[in-house]
Amino acid sequence: MTAPKQLFDRPLRAVNVGVEEFARPLEAAGAEVTSVDWRPPAGGDRELGLTLANLTAHPLVESANEEAVNRILDTQPLLVDVRPAREVLPELGEARLLLHAGPPIEWERMCGPMRAAVAGAAMLEGWADTPSAAERLADSGEIKFAPCHHHDAVGPMAGIISASMPLLVVQDARTGRRAYSTLNEGQGRCLRYGALGEDVMRRLTWMGERLGPSLRAAIRSMPEPVNLKTVIAQALQMGDECHSRNVAASALLVRLLAPALARHRELGGIEALEFLADNNYWFLNFSMAASKLATMAGHGVAHSTVVTAFARNGVDVGIRVSGTGDEWFTAPAADVDGLYFPGYGPADANPDIGDSAITEVHGLGGFSLAAAPAIVGFVGGTTADARRATEEMATITVGRHRELQLPTLDFAGSPVGIDVRAVLDASLEPVITTGISHREPGIGQIGAGITHAPLECFVKALRAFPVPRYGP
Amino acid sequence: MTAPKQLFDRPLRAVNVGVEEFARPLEAAGAEVTSVDWRPPAGGDRELGLTLANLTAHPLVESANEEAVNRILDTQPLLVDVRPAREVLPELGEARLLLHAGPPIEWERMCGPMRAAVAGAAMLEGWADTPSAAERLADSGEIKFAPCHHHDAVGPMAGIISASMPLLVVQDARTGRRAYSTLNEGQGRCLRYGALGEDVMRRLTWMGERLGPSLRAAIRSMPEPVNLKTVIAQALQMGDECHSRNVAASALLVRLLAPALARHRELGGIEALEFLADNNYWFLNFSMAASKLATMAGHGVAHSTVVTAFARNGVDVGIRVSGTGDEWFTAPAADVDGLYFPGYGPADANPDIGDSAITEVHGLGGFSLAAAPAIVGFVGGTTADARRATEEMATITVGRHRELQLPTLDFAGSPVGIDVRAVLDASLEPVITTGISHREPGIGQIGAGITHAPLECFVKALRAFPVPRYGP
Repeated sequence: MTAPKQLFDRPLRAVNVGVEEFARPLEAAGAEVTSVDWRPPAGGDRELGLTLANLTAHPLVESANEEAVNRILDTQPLLVDVRPAREVLPELGEARLLLHAGPPIEWERMCGPMRAAVAGAAMLEGWADTPSAAERLADSGEIKFAPCHHHDAVGPMAGIISASMPLLVVQDARTGRRAYSTLNEGQGRCLRYGALGEDVMRRLTWMGERLGPSLRAAIRSMPEPVNLKTVIAQALQMGDECHSRNVAASALLVRLLAPALARHRELGGIEALEFLADNNYWFLNFSMAASKLATMAGHGVAHSTVVTAFARNGVDVGIRVSGTGDEWFTAPAADVDGLYFPGYGPADANPDIGDSAITEVHGLGGFSLAAAPAIVGFVGGTTADARRATEEMATITVGRHRELQLPTLDFAGSPVGIDVRAVLDASLEPVITTGISHREPGIGQIGAGITHAPLECFVKALRAFPVPRYGP
Repeated sequence: MTAPKQLFDRPLRAVNVGVEEFARPLEAAGAEVTSVDWRPPAGGDRELGLTLANLTAHPLVESANEEAVNRILDTQPLLVDVRPAREVLPELGEARLLLHAGPPIEWERMCGPMRAAVAGAAMLEGWADTPSAAERLADSGEIKFAPCHHHDAVGPMAGIISASMPLLVVQDARTGRRAYSTLNEGQGRCLRYGALGEDVMRRLTWMGERLGPSLRAAIRSMPEPVNLKTVIAQALQMGDECHSRNVAASALLVRLLAPALARHRELGGIEALEFLADNNYWFLNFSMAASKLATMAGHGVAHSTVVTAFARNGVDVGIRVSGTGDEWFTAPAADVDGLYFPGYGPADANPDIGDSAITEVHGLGGFSLAAAPAIVGFVGGTTADARRATEEMATITVGRHRELQLPTLDFAGSPVGIDVRAVLDASLEPVITTGISHREPGIGQIGAGITHAPLECFVKALRAFPVPRYGP
């Protein structure tokens, strides 16, 4: 490399704000340019910019956000039970109702993997004998659909919950509030990724008949319930971000439950231990239920711009905001930048899908990427990139976790409480770590990677946000 | 702060090599001083410096060291068995022989915790009913002592091995060579820390009668033996350095063995799972046995200056070097810079003790500190300090592990193969992470921290090292 041309008789220093291209001619002329990464707030939209200005540093919003985040932080998610879905959500037993991931969507608009998972669930419940019979049943309007999120539940990927599936039950120690998730099927050919086949159905049947009951007995025989936040806190010290990497949390939880499972061999405890011995995604569903419980606590605070859900159905994605009630603010599902299993590529990938991004809303996943450098390795990143992602996310969040700490950031708390205002002010989309499903029904997982929550959701949320008046 | 006095009409830049004090006057005068951390090789000893010079870049030494490290790296430590010590080391059943940690030491010179552990082992074997009776027996010369290392075994802290204690058996996949270690008693009041009492003795009896047999049955019923290197590789991605932090490796190993343990409830499998559910030191002894097996493979290569053992008996510490046969090069045991349990302090601490530093010789522990920032937190350090420790250790080692990688150093291999020449050239003592015993017999663990292998051991080893002539 040759030395840069020196046009000035003493070193020139400049600061360039925004569009990077303006720095180039100065650098070429030998100046030392400090670039500031700035984009116009609210994407340069004038009306939205005014709303944003009105909400910025607004005392009612500030205190509402503090309240919302404190409620999230105060949640202590205890693992209290595993029961068939119909027992904890009776509405599932009363009609042909299936819950699905993401914001509301009709059968006709569902993506391939979700249609396959619907067919699998219909067969599991005995409503149909074949995938095509199940599809016909859905076509006829006989099956009703609702988001898991509308029933205090979350499901990864397609996220289908049917009456006989065992759900794990997480309860807040203080308020008694409860949230639910399915049990994890493992990796590869799973219903949640849209895989279908005898192996998939046989595993689902076994989960209902043996895994669920033995786990239930084990959990209820623990001297005191496992606090999932304690497990998450340990796992963040151990390379997990508790969305796309759950190796440590899975091993810690199995180790805790192992003696009680071993005591219930008649119910399937030993088979359960065999199933769990190498299931490194096992904890994901526990992390999701704990995250749903915490974010539910933060929901419904008037004037709060804190995001309390981000969920994807494979076609649309949507957010809910603490201060705007139960409305979903949606956008088309984004693509995932990922690493693919051999033989697959981006053209095979379904867009972003699943309720699992509730973990990001809770400060885990992409927001705790600093804890899990192995994840950024998927997409060619370094440990410095992982730390940077968390530090960036800290600029769009209201607070920091106290118990959940990140070792590579010298034990700083995970950033938590995505602020719609901050996302739009910086035009910075939340980072999500995720798995990738094949877009065709029946195939399953084909990779894993990183994506973002689209800015459009936040734009719509801000447009709908009631600007509070000053004063009492 | 006021600006420094400016004595020169343009910025003065200086490089200062060695003694830091020389930089101060220049800095006070406004110069920008770059300090180079340099110490005279071999502590400035002229004769030793000559030996060092003769060995530096010597082709026979270089190729011998490469060979020694390759043998270490090629070891695949399979967990094949757990058996009473007398069955794998028959010499322990033939006489009143006890093995102990560190280089050789007579009963009269043993430190408090080791004397207590000897008394406990004598009672466990039925040689004495009380600690004082056991001490009298030892005084009479009735008990023989030998280092664990002389029997292909290692024991943490006092490291006492007696005939009825269960030993884990690790076998190299390629050569069939075997190494042994005791099973871990947990934390706090344990014989290895010199604690005595009914609780300690009851646990030891249970370990022989129930834990050992159920583990044996579980391990021998695995479809294929667990490769401990795979567990170590995973654990290094999960915050363990596999000496003083073993949380991840312990949980991973228990998860793997859980189904087989559950199947052997008649032998004690469920009790074993209960004991293991919160024993976060459990894997230490497996890490030590795997490290002993690997470093044994690297021992005995003519002309190699690679260290193949570092061990401490609480009074002396010693190293063995690949190319100098079975001789120990010893120095007084160092103090430990540590964090103490409430009520204890440095005045209560026994000097450095145990065979566990075999993990550092194998590139784990202090050499993999970058993997475990939680450890440096003990002594007030940061994650950057942890990374720096590993990078420093890489300057005194011959190679890098291939399978054992450090995430915070962008997946660089752990530095392995301590080179006596490099230690003396830089006067840089190897870093050791360790537990701390009370110096009085009968009390047990009082803390954990960081220490160093004394330079004196390396000086003695170099003095004894035969300088090879050039040519065939």
